[in-house]
Amino acid sequence: MNDRLARVTLMRLAEPGDTLMGGLVASLGAQEAVARVRAGHPDPALVRLLTGGDGGVGGDGGDDDDAGGSAGGAGGSGTGGSREERIAGRLGRALASWSARLEPADPRRDLAEGERSGARLVIPGDPEWPTQLDDLGRSRPYALWLHGDADLRFSCLRSVAIVGSRAVTPYGAHVAAEFGAGLSGRGWSVVSGGAYGVDGAAHRGALAGDAPTVAVLACGADVAYPSAHHQLFAAVRAHGVLVSECPMGSHPTRPRFLIRNRLIAALSRGTVVVEAAVRSGALSTARHALSLNRVLGAVPGPVTSETSAGCHRLIRQGAAVCVTTPEEAVELTGAMGTDLAREPCGPVLPRDELEPETRRVLEAVPARGGAGPAAIAVTAGVGMDTALSCLGGLAAAGYIERVARGWRLRPEGPRSPSGR
Amino acid sequence: MNDRLARVTLMRLAEPGDTLMGGLVASLGAQEAVARVRAGHPDPALVRLLTGGDGGVGGDGGDDDDAGGSAGGAGGSGTGGSREERIAGRLGRALASWSARLEPADPRRDLAEGERSGARLVIPGDPEWPTQLDDLGRSRPYALWLHGDADLRFSCLRSVAIVGSRAVTPYGAHVAAEFGAGLSGRGWSVVSGGAYGVDGAAHRGALAGDAPTVAVLACGADVAYPSAHHQLFAAVRAHGVLVSECPMGSHPTRPRFLIRNRLIAALSRGTVVVEAAVRSGALSTARHALSLNRVLGAVPGPVTSETSAGCHRLIRQGAAVCVTTPEEAVELTGAMGTDLAREPCGPVLPRDELEPETRRVLEAVPARGGAGPAAIAVTAGVGMDTALSCLGGLAAAGYIERVARGWRLRPEGPRSPSGR
Repeated sequence: MNDRLARVTLMRLAEPGDTLMGGLVASLGAQEAVARVRAGHPDPALVRLLTGGDGGVGGDGGDDDDAGGSAGGAGGSGTGGSREERIAGRLGRALASWSARLEPADPRRDLAEGERSGARLVIPGDPEWPTQLDDLGRSRPYALWLHGDADLRFSCLRSVAIVGSRAVTPYGAHVAAEFGAGLSGRGWSVVSGGAYGVDGAAHRGALAGDAPTVAVLACGADVAYPSAHHQLFAAVRAHGVLVSECPMGSHPTRPRFLIRNRLIAALSRGTVVVEAAVRSGALSTARHALSLNRVLGAVPGPVTSETSAGCHRLIRQGAAVCVTTPEEAVELTGAMGTDLAREPCGPVLPRDELEPETRRVLEAVPARGGAGPAAIAVTAGVGMDTALSCLGGLAAAGYIERVARGWRLRPEGPRSPSGR
Repeated sequence: MNDRLARVTLMRLAEPGDTLMGGLVASLGAQEAVARVRAGHPDPALVRLLTGGDGGVGGDGGDDDDAGGSAGGAGGSGTGGSREERIAGRLGRALASWSARLEPADPRRDLAEGERSGARLVIPGDPEWPTQLDDLGRSRPYALWLHGDADLRFSCLRSVAIVGSRAVTPYGAHVAAEFGAGLSGRGWSVVSGGAYGVDGAAHRGALAGDAPTVAVLACGADVAYPSAHHQLFAAVRAHGVLVSECPMGSHPTRPRFLIRNRLIAALSRGTVVVEAAVRSGALSTARHALSLNRVLGAVPGPVTSETSAGCHRLIRQGAAVCVTTPEEAVELTGAMGTDLAREPCGPVLPRDELEPETRRVLEAVPARGGAGPAAIAVTAGVGMDTALSCLGGLAAAGYIERVARGWRLRPEGPRSPSGR
């Protein structure tokens, strides 16, 4: 069983975001994790593995709110025993639960059926894998099913998550669509959840611009939920990409919606909450964005509107920046450029101070028309991975820009070192 | 000529907020300042006086935007010469301008006519003088004309300035009225400018509650501007107080509106901007509040509304706290209680740790009904000034509260030392 098959298997065995399984995969790799589930009983070495190392299980176990947790955690013994005993108990219950799902799993069929439906499996290490998902630690997805013409990693280089209530007001729907269109028109991808309300309005607005839009589902990539959005999803597949960490055919559940929100926050460089009541699920995405050190914005609204109260609370607490236009959303998210400066290809430098590899990639980018990353990689004589990484850095530094046909040089050249 | 007559004279000679005149009065007193204007030419000792001392003239000269400045500053020579030469030049021109106004000034008639109209003159040192105006330094008013049943100093102990655009939207008018009523209902006075739009709505809302409302005019106390608000001003006189630093009969000008705004900011413990476009005059009040170390709040609104853009900018800049309800405005302004703790009567202490004088005043405050400050001063056996000061501190510390008939004990007793 290779790594792809192992990861397809894991999608069937454990719920998305299960940090116990995530810990096993991080320590042993996907293939060995499947083998351990097959072996059954939890040996002491495994428990030591999970309690030691970087953070250990339960240390970075994520929000309790978000009900991801361990599949075996539901009947948790809770208080008694040492930490190792508790983890051994959790692991034993989880192994039992995973084992029960191992028998009916058929990864070869899953892979074949997924590909037949037009989707593609992307796993860590693939060129299209968005490396920013590594920030999720032990709740990193085992793999992703993608369906759509856009390259996910590419689309997320300059992306903003637009989230908010399903029960949107006309004001919220208008603002979400304006932000979607404004961001897309500036070459920024909109990441959202494909739901009714703010999500749908943001995707639709984004489809009016050039940048691909990314819909992260809480169900299988082939299950268009909500079904009334099937036309929207068709448009996203044509001009963007649908993303799912669930096996094909799986249906959305409340825990899956909440755990899915961490992907929206992690994929994008920042999250903007357009409209949210104080108990809206969109605020869970906001919390994930903060805990992942992504920037967070919130759009104010009338103080007479309950559906803006969650946004106002984020602003009052200083958790979110007050954002009133797509330009301000870009300003907010673009400020993350300071982080990119630490990446090998990112610093804002005069052209001749760039790293040799980066300069070769830059020289391969056409001034007109635009070229895709594969063509640029060939011209520059670098690998696809290097090309993607350098292109992201060059874009963040303002040397190049994304157009419909790929990348081209920015007519006005790079931004000054002082930023915008 | 006594101090009162001298200050009535100064109101005629110099524009409100003239920091050159303010410097003279601060250094020499009002009577001597009038005498120097009468003497005419600027002697070198006077120039030394104005360039030395605390900050000197021009050092704390306030916003250039606000066009208060020196009456003689308009033709300012600008660049050349030493600092002393420049101030000598300004002073020479100012003295010429003030002298020209000295001839027609008739302070005895001003005083008599003002009092005949029902107003009263209040000068620094009077029990009703709001000592927080001392924060204005050299732009402190020479004197104030007050017209209305409420005690100004008293009314401002727990007060919030509500300001905003004259060109108000229905949303802004609604929110201003809600804030006015909500604050007044909680015993907080609303300070505003009596203008169309947000000001008027805030005053009207405040009139629905118990607390007095304070309208600070940019014209004479007898000139009800705008005239369409004459009924509103009558109601403010009956349940609050009109305030003016201009001579009786003077008409509003744009510079007077702007310089007036510093009084609104200085009288109140905090300012809340309800609705303001990015170039609204209400933002000058916000700037004054910040420069006076008062708290500043702003009410968000739809991002689609230009008249909320100024509020959003203040929030985005971190200059203002996002405020969505009257409770939040009280929370914001009540945080100033930490400043009051430095006043002699203010600290939040168990009752038996109060200063003896303060305790006597507290014991004179009835548990029911309420008593005015004069009656409390007599019962406690202290002077009116002491009584007022101690009552303010006791109120800020939560021992007593203001009711329609004066002061009474708070049923729930003082707040805990940790605040709210």
